Amino acid sequence: MTTPSATAPPALEWSTANCQVARTMAILGERATVEVLREVFNGVRRFDDMQRHSGVARQVLSNRLALLVDEGILRRVPYRPEGGRQRHEYRPTKKGFDLYPVLTALADWGARYAAGPEGPPVEMAHRGCGSRVHAVLECEAGHRLDDPREVAPAPGPGATRIS
Amino acid sequence: MTTPSATAPPALEWSTANCQVARTMAILGERATVEVLREVFNGVRRFDDMQRHSGVARQVLSNRLALLVDEGILRRVPYRPEGGRQRHEYRPTKKGFDLYPVLTALADWGARYAAGPEGPPVEMAHRGCGSRVHAVLECEAGHRLDDPREVAPAPGPGATRIS
Repeated sequence: MTTPSATAPPALEWSTANCQVARTMAILGERATVEVLREVFNGVRRFDDMQRHSGVARQVLSNRLALLVDEGILRRVPYRPEGGRQRHEYRPTKKGFDLYPVLTALADWGARYAAGPEGPPVEMAHRGCGSRVHAVLECEAGHRLDDPREVAPAPGPGATRIS
Repeated sequence: MTTPSATAPPALEWSTANCQVARTMAILGERATVEVLREVFNGVRRFDDMQRHSGVARQVLSNRLALLVDEGILRRVPYRPEGGRQRHEYRPTKKGFDLYPVLTALADWGARYAAGPEGPPVEMAHRGCGSRVHAVLECEAGHRLDDPREVAPAPGPGATRIS
């Protein structure tokens, strides 16, 4: 039994209406969407390959790809298989590549808490040197935060008080 | 029109069945779940406060909290308001705090791509010095990866070939 906090949490004074985390999760907040991103980041860029590899149902995959293109996270690039009709493959845009810290943080956490005893099936690697890559917390003053309890959310420039 | 790749993507040789990113998204892959985590990390720990502040429907909130407790990401701590019956508040466990890089990466990306012209309503701050905190990519050899295209997924110890 703990003593109740004497004061209400300061966060309650601030609106969540324009929260950028919620807005990001409105895009990424379905497992299949992140699975599609994983495929594309893994170099699996064609619909049939993605479908077979991920096991995501065709209609769901089609919807998720359309959403990611609409959001400017993936772009469609035409190609023509030998003797076939024109098709498209999907590649990340700059906005898409900028999701790598999110994917890496998910992979890091999953490697620790969601992998089997055999270890995680995928790791992020640095193309330059081959070493494993992680998403780490660093502040603008250059401090590395090894303990996540050193982080505290704070109101940003777009914070609006609940009146 | 690009030339089709000469070879199939190597990732197609590896199973996605035990993918730790998919497993993590099986837990986090609903917008409301991440919104609940945001509330708790913001110090909003009580059911009624979370409900009012986030606007998440009571039944959804109740389900998401139960899931996060079952997964060992939040823990229930009893308290008794003055004159009232015993209630519980929700606090992150170690496993929960270890999601801070995921939340920070989501907040970073959202600040760039999903915030309004006024800027993001929330920033992560370093408790020690007050500076803004970001999720950055770093490899185990100590290289900071400023361009996410320097990252490439690679098979990990748990990777299994599709036979």
